[in-house]
Amino acid sequence: MDSKTLGILGGGQLGRMMVEAAHRLNVKTVILDGENSPAKQINALDGHVNGSFTDPEAIAQLAAKCDVLTIEIEHVNANVLEAIEKQGKVAVHPSPATIRLIQDKYNQKMHLIKHGIATAEVVQVESSLEGLKAAGAKFGYPYMLKSRLDAYDGRGNFVVDTENDVEAALQFLNNRTLYAEKFARFTHELAVMVVRSLDGEVHSYPTVETVQKNNICERVFAPARVPDSFLTKAQLLAENAVKTFSGAGIFGVEMFLLDDGTILLNEIAPRPHNSGHYTQDGCVTSQFEAHVRAVLGLPLPKNFATMSTPGTSAIMLNILGGEKPNQELEECKRALETPGAIVHLYGKSTRPNRKMGHVNIIAGSMLEAEAKLARITGEPIPAALAAAEGEVAGTSQQPLVGIIMGSDSDLPVMAVGANILKSFGVPFEVKIVSAHRTPHRMTKYATEAAARGLKAIIAGAGGAAHLPGMVAAMTSLPVIGVPVKGSVLDGVDSLHSIVQMPRGVPVATVAINNATNAALLAIRILGAFVPEYRNKIDAYNCNMEQEVLKKTERLEAGGYEKY
Amino acid sequence: MDSKTLGILGGGQLGRMMVEAAHRLNVKTVILDGENSPAKQINALDGHVNGSFTDPEAIAQLAAKCDVLTIEIEHVNANVLEAIEKQGKVAVHPSPATIRLIQDKYNQKMHLIKHGIATAEVVQVESSLEGLKAAGAKFGYPYMLKSRLDAYDGRGNFVVDTENDVEAALQFLNNRTLYAEKFARFTHELAVMVVRSLDGEVHSYPTVETVQKNNICERVFAPARVPDSFLTKAQLLAENAVKTFSGAGIFGVEMFLLDDGTILLNEIAPRPHNSGHYTQDGCVTSQFEAHVRAVLGLPLPKNFATMSTPGTSAIMLNILGGEKPNQELEECKRALETPGAIVHLYGKSTRPNRKMGHVNIIAGSMLEAEAKLARITGEPIPAALAAAEGEVAGTSQQPLVGIIMGSDSDLPVMAVGANILKSFGVPFEVKIVSAHRTPHRMTKYATEAAARGLKAIIAGAGGAAHLPGMVAAMTSLPVIGVPVKGSVLDGVDSLHSIVQMPRGVPVATVAINNATNAALLAIRILGAFVPEYRNKIDAYNCNMEQEVLKKTERLEAGGYEKY
Repeated sequence: MDSKTLGILGGGQLGRMMVEAAHRLNVKTVILDGENSPAKQINALDGHVNGSFTDPEAIAQLAAKCDVLTIEIEHVNANVLEAIEKQGKVAVHPSPATIRLIQDKYNQKMHLIKHGIATAEVVQVESSLEGLKAAGAKFGYPYMLKSRLDAYDGRGNFVVDTENDVEAALQFLNNRTLYAEKFARFTHELAVMVVRSLDGEVHSYPTVETVQKNNICERVFAPARVPDSFLTKAQLLAENAVKTFSGAGIFGVEMFLLDDGTILLNEIAPRPHNSGHYTQDGCVTSQFEAHVRAVLGLPLPKNFATMSTPGTSAIMLNILGGEKPNQELEECKRALETPGAIVHLYGKSTRPNRKMGHVNIIAGSMLEAEAKLARITGEPIPAALAAAEGEVAGTSQQPLVGIIMGSDSDLPVMAVGANILKSFGVPFEVKIVSAHRTPHRMTKYATEAAARGLKAIIAGAGGAAHLPGMVAAMTSLPVIGVPVKGSVLDGVDSLHSIVQMPRGVPVATVAINNATNAALLAIRILGAFVPEYRNKIDAYNCNMEQEVLKKTERLEAGGYEKY
Repeated sequence: MDSKTLGILGGGQLGRMMVEAAHRLNVKTVILDGENSPAKQINALDGHVNGSFTDPEAIAQLAAKCDVLTIEIEHVNANVLEAIEKQGKVAVHPSPATIRLIQDKYNQKMHLIKHGIATAEVVQVESSLEGLKAAGAKFGYPYMLKSRLDAYDGRGNFVVDTENDVEAALQFLNNRTLYAEKFARFTHELAVMVVRSLDGEVHSYPTVETVQKNNICERVFAPARVPDSFLTKAQLLAENAVKTFSGAGIFGVEMFLLDDGTILLNEIAPRPHNSGHYTQDGCVTSQFEAHVRAVLGLPLPKNFATMSTPGTSAIMLNILGGEKPNQELEECKRALETPGAIVHLYGKSTRPNRKMGHVNIIAGSMLEAEAKLARITGEPIPAALAAAEGEVAGTSQQPLVGIIMGSDSDLPVMAVGANILKSFGVPFEVKIVSAHRTPHRMTKYATEAAARGLKAIIAGAGGAAHLPGMVAAMTSLPVIGVPVKGSVLDGVDSLHSIVQMPRGVPVATVAINNATNAALLAIRILGAFVPEYRNKIDAYNCNMEQEVLKKTERLEAGGYEKY
């Protein structure tokens, strides 16, 4: 796709997945890392360099074979890259200046603060007991003591809980250049992948929630399970942060959501990131392809960074090496048995806590994705999750439409609608829920309906017909009301009670006793999004037309007297 | 994922994509084919064999390195594979007996006929003018003259149009063993990928439509653009056909849909197939991963062969080498610029009509996918397609809800609903469409609404309010009716005219003049499938609750007299 050769410093899993994306575009990649590293295993093209991505000579060798250099890890030799960039023959992305700035976490923070990006307060700390105590005096306890350089997966961090911990902290981060950070009491860790194009435009992927275990990212939930307004705020913060750096490519931006709703930037990785793995199967374009496109100046069209299907949810589960060799394969095997779970392994030899691979779970709702996750990890599956798992329309018996009625005396009317749903192959449930006799049951039913995967509720009621309106008041789903004709007033009482809802709470009312139309309306609602049902409605309408045409034929042929 | 090593006979693009799938599962693959073949380029693991997949010695070399052998092309040496299978050390899938049976197209057809699979009539043909004329006498003209062996991409086929063509036909298929096939007058070519597991269970992917150009597959539409009943029939035929063969793996089944609705099996490929490439981006599990799983006995869970998201459509476009070298990259570049188009290139050098790669287009509807296709191929985009392209909710101003009314005198009532849609960020349109004064305009509006991407219609009308019901009669979309109060009868006339629809044609009726609820109902319908809107409805309901609570606070604090 592009005749330029792309050199990658680092051949771990991030490099491997970059190579996978590049292959599909016929982009030639050359890798600098140890022999047989994960990225090299899947790249038999010529000219890889064996060596360290910090070794000036090896980097020069790599540069000699490439048009563009990029990184899969930020702990590279930024000086050498800068010299290469200056020579002007080989482009380097992200820019060496950005890499250097980000390598030193204290400088990174100061840079962000200078540009008005919300982040935790920081202070330089002298590597002495006095220095650590001074930081404690400034920020209070606990505070975070961090190494400025070479910190990765939390290995350069120490939580100083009280003044008594300063000695242990100093020992743990012995001989490193330190700084302190005010402790952020967060409720969620968020992350956003941001792509910066050659001309400096930034585009962000959805906001995700990362869950760490022993300082290693274990799970990622996309979108993050926080209110929508935070999702947007986090995207903006991440975009604004990445705008302050130079050079093209993808950036992983980690953030904290505090309990008062503030979002603080934690740190930035100038490369593909574990929190963006879900994009491989969840988004229009994966973070790896986006990175390759960005550094080569290939197109990044509208919506490339959105979920492939609006409204779907994704969970990424890291596969970490188990205590026993290959123990982690048990989890992989369960993932292979789980529909909608995609396994990505990295070709590494097994070692406890090593990132061996990951699983992406894609589902119609987060509830469904969580049920699949529990199945894979072997955790017990809560009943609500188990019910949600089969939510996908047309492929399981998980109901899409709920039929409820105030009394079993309404059943003869409502059963007609149920039969329509059955004949259209729509999964549904039928229940008696009375507004006046089982108000709490009604509340529970209405409140849980959307989360259970229902797409519409049909409620039938007679007399002072409160059920449809009350249910509509407690759900976000469309509610269809069927006025059931009672023994007096011809059903007009039910009709008016159902249709004359106050502004704010709609009920889709159909004709008196006409559960047929209620069912057809529910199928039309499904059909607006599921072509299978739309096609069936079209066929049904066509059939009605044919029947009338046959009747008129018989009438016209035989005459009206004999009809 | 599996400690077995998988040997692949053939290293073309099908082998390459098999290897790509195997890498993700840490399954070691070894390839037999020429040096630097597409599959070898992405596999730097040890032990590939350079040579031909028909050479007994090379096959033996490959077998010595593997636990399981499979193929990416059926024109291999079946005898050698059979001998290897008999030794019992290395498993071979699909079974050599199956490969041999399928290699000879006449035998393949006879086998299918014997098992009651619908296929075109065939007869053996002697390679002489008399032989060809005898076939013409039996089947009439035109008939298909085919080579029994080594036919690929139509290269062994000749359409004998009249008796005058027999000489040309004989010359074209000179020196080959021939058979004739009755000409199938098809309207569509269909194909289904079928996976056969080690224990003989078969699972089929959706039925697709293939479009050939110069005997080479050019485009694949998934699902096929034919009525649903044919989709199911084709899947069953394909499954039944694959059940008759032995050995595990994926099979591509090509079929003809005739103008009388008959489906005939055309031919079977015992391997991944061009018509299944769309599964890489469109389905839960790709045909390549499914093949790897099947031949190694790894799990094939429920729904692995369905579309990732129910209701989505996919188009596969082959990228064929252009007349000028690399001319085809123009098409690739436009694909990179098209949202939802995924490029897969094979690492081959350019040559006219060579399969260089393919593009998978995934979209919410076939109309939208076709618009993207036209953009990539550079064909003019019909206006209806252009409108459909931005169909995805929330990402464009393509309307999702249509508001129509019989007269501009209804506007004050209906505008309230429009404002609700606006405040929720729902794209919508507002039009005057009168049932009685513009009946043809109404017909056009109702008939085209679903194809234009609308998801619901809100129709307001007063008096003899026919508009909502008439529109409902001519669309498959949910129609919401707003009875508008006239100067007499208090709107009860409108209400009854709208709500009392006959069985078969539902209108979701709301309270008199209550366009607010009509709009909220439309948003609930969108929200049943688009979480963004569901969340907004939840927030709206929550807000209503808060307002009432504030009022009661004021009432309780200040007393009812002062309120």
